[in-house]
Amino acid sequence: MMTMYELISKKKHGAELSAEEINWFVAGYVSGSIPDYQASAWLMAVCFSSLSDRETADLTMAMARSGDMQKPGLDGFCADKHSTGGVGDKTTLITAPIVAACGVYVPKMSGRGLGHTGGTIDKLESIPGFNTSLSYDDFISVVKKAGFAVAGQTGTLVPADKKLYALRNATATVDSIPLICSSIMSKKLATGADGIVLDVKTGDGAFMKTEEDAEKLAEAMVRVGRLAGRKCSAVLTDMNKPLGKAVGNSLEVIEAIEALKGNAPPDLLEVSLTLAAEMLSLAGKGTHEECLAMAESTLKSGKALECLKYMIELQGGNNRVTEDYSLFMQPKRSKEVFADKDGFISEISCEHTGMISLKLGAGRKTKESEIDPSAGIVFDRTVGDKVKKGDRIAVLYTSSDCDLEEIAEEFGKVITVSSEKPVLNKNIIKIIKGY
Amino acid sequence: MMTMYELISKKKHGAELSAEEINWFVAGYVSGSIPDYQASAWLMAVCFSSLSDRETADLTMAMARSGDMQKPGLDGFCADKHSTGGVGDKTTLITAPIVAACGVYVPKMSGRGLGHTGGTIDKLESIPGFNTSLSYDDFISVVKKAGFAVAGQTGTLVPADKKLYALRNATATVDSIPLICSSIMSKKLATGADGIVLDVKTGDGAFMKTEEDAEKLAEAMVRVGRLAGRKCSAVLTDMNKPLGKAVGNSLEVIEAIEALKGNAPPDLLEVSLTLAAEMLSLAGKGTHEECLAMAESTLKSGKALECLKYMIELQGGNNRVTEDYSLFMQPKRSKEVFADKDGFISEISCEHTGMISLKLGAGRKTKESEIDPSAGIVFDRTVGDKVKKGDRIAVLYTSSDCDLEEIAEEFGKVITVSSEKPVLNKNIIKIIKGY
Repeated sequence: MMTMYELISKKKHGAELSAEEINWFVAGYVSGSIPDYQASAWLMAVCFSSLSDRETADLTMAMARSGDMQKPGLDGFCADKHSTGGVGDKTTLITAPIVAACGVYVPKMSGRGLGHTGGTIDKLESIPGFNTSLSYDDFISVVKKAGFAVAGQTGTLVPADKKLYALRNATATVDSIPLICSSIMSKKLATGADGIVLDVKTGDGAFMKTEEDAEKLAEAMVRVGRLAGRKCSAVLTDMNKPLGKAVGNSLEVIEAIEALKGNAPPDLLEVSLTLAAEMLSLAGKGTHEECLAMAESTLKSGKALECLKYMIELQGGNNRVTEDYSLFMQPKRSKEVFADKDGFISEISCEHTGMISLKLGAGRKTKESEIDPSAGIVFDRTVGDKVKKGDRIAVLYTSSDCDLEEIAEEFGKVITVSSEKPVLNKNIIKIIKGY
Repeated sequence: MMTMYELISKKKHGAELSAEEINWFVAGYVSGSIPDYQASAWLMAVCFSSLSDRETADLTMAMARSGDMQKPGLDGFCADKHSTGGVGDKTTLITAPIVAACGVYVPKMSGRGLGHTGGTIDKLESIPGFNTSLSYDDFISVVKKAGFAVAGQTGTLVPADKKLYALRNATATVDSIPLICSSIMSKKLATGADGIVLDVKTGDGAFMKTEEDAEKLAEAMVRVGRLAGRKCSAVLTDMNKPLGKAVGNSLEVIEAIEALKGNAPPDLLEVSLTLAAEMLSLAGKGTHEECLAMAESTLKSGKALECLKYMIELQGGNNRVTEDYSLFMQPKRSKEVFADKDGFISEISCEHTGMISLKLGAGRKTKESEIDPSAGIVFDRTVGDKVKKGDRIAVLYTSSDCDLEEIAEEFGKVITVSSEKPVLNKNIIKIIKGY
């Protein structure tokens, strides 16, 4: 007979658990026969003793199987992408329509934002009428027609992750690579995608602060994906500054639409095209380089924008927003921010950008908070740009009654101006292929 | 505002908690405002990150203060002793009356046995009429008259330890030196003794398997005792074989009485006298050597036996048992065990001795089990003795209907007979003084 005591003790002493033991734990925890206090002790032991690749794969698969395993049942390759979260990350809204326009399905289940990072669902809901709560059949029907769809996760998808994540969040056991890997990959495996591209962010604004940790997580996820029989690769991308120039829900949707019209900031364009190319490559459309060219020409052709418009329409949204941005809820107030000295922008802090965006109303302080879809920041300049004292560097937007003067004061923490031109980080650090 | 999340996270990352944070945790856990699942995650983080000396002392004192802090209110020095648990450990029944006979009070709160180690309370209850459930006033009144008393712990003494110990026991977080230290020392500090002698067992039959760990625990406890303003020392003693020749409740009481009559096996005598000498030395009766001589002459004088007899009478027991062992409940069945070859006894396994004693009925398999006071083992020989094939080496006793033949078969695992004379371990490994 297995006991949870024994499983905790084994992991505490660094021993490897069998697949049978891990399955027993996940099933017992979801059913409630294993109490939270034993599960949290085990999770903390995992934070210290880690899990082997085999254990991580077994845990991920046991979690994936804890609820419904979706089968999209589409007549072609299904590609999925996941970002570990960053500030200003609207790549899904650019990448997914490009991939769909190239003939690869993208059924994208997405989450909401919490804390200083945003969620795709919240962004799309800034489009008047847009519905992210689709039944599974309706979701797949949108995918069939538009090539992609974006909806919120349903409760029956990976209940083990829901319960374990809440416990990890209360017991400081979030920052363990095998646990992060199993949480992300269990959801990706349960959605039944044939290919999965993971955008693993690294830097000050990312969950993984160092390239080393980001690479470890990326490799762990790619290994698990492969062990589960999926095509999988990971792209390590920079998150030492916000991605693109807009942060906030409708502001990011507008930036994505502009990108599909050919007006993307270079960093956002490079990351979006690279992710699209990897998804196409997993789908067998060619080498990464061939797929990069394909993604680029598809963007230029306007087909990806057409895809996005069709998807918005099918999900109940007013797709005239793509031509008329005044159809978005308009911010009631705004405040311009100016450079206080001459020099080069050497840093834009993701953490402070996120915090200010939260104060403006663009994010959630708690799970229950309401979002102001109009709130956020648009930067005029980015890292490396030359500025003169008095140049406008950003505009803050809000519809709430927050103290804009005070927030503008705090904005001093966001941007650092230095006398020397900074060395720029690469947007794409590495691609880790698992196929 | 403090949060448990923050305390767990700090300990997970190896940071030191303040006294305020530790007090807040203990108070919150005892009151129920901190849930088990957060406490268990913290305990597991402590198992890996450990606690500093200062944190250990703060935790111990916070736990001690979680319930009643007893004040014996006696007109002299109060000495206490604690053993980390072993097989055949009846030293309290010899040491306490010696110390009491030398004029130092020994108010001894004791526990029950669980698993393969015995408890003093269970042993004393084998004496017909003996009552271990005294009110605190009655307990102190016995100490005043006889110089010592032995009673079970009351529920209001250190509730934090009771709750934390149950959680540790369910979450594989028992084997952490600072946690063991705080559990033992919080109870010792709460009983208000002026001096505390810790008998830290080491070896196969002890909780601390290695001398290194035993020494670490001993030093941690002595440091905490000193920080709490008590005189404190630790004696590291060998537990690679049972102590003395008898294992089982009435059998051990009889061996202790015989010891007080001058008939102790050498190992039991040396450990008992050393502990008594340390207790007397803490009380200011002289150097360890002077106190050792005092303990020895007190034993020889018969005064310690008189003390024990008086204490038994005051606690409601029939003290004629000291002269007439047939007044103890007699075992209904017995079985002799013989050597199966010529040679020297090179090992007596504590673990197997404890297991067999349990099967005979001398111990508790669960907290609710009833004990057979007559059950146990008496060895005829000890480690280092020469034996011939067919020599009797032990007798097994029981009043239960256990399978004596099968148990006698298993007894083969207890004693190892080798052709070479073994090197004997020292009974007393080290004395660690903290005053």
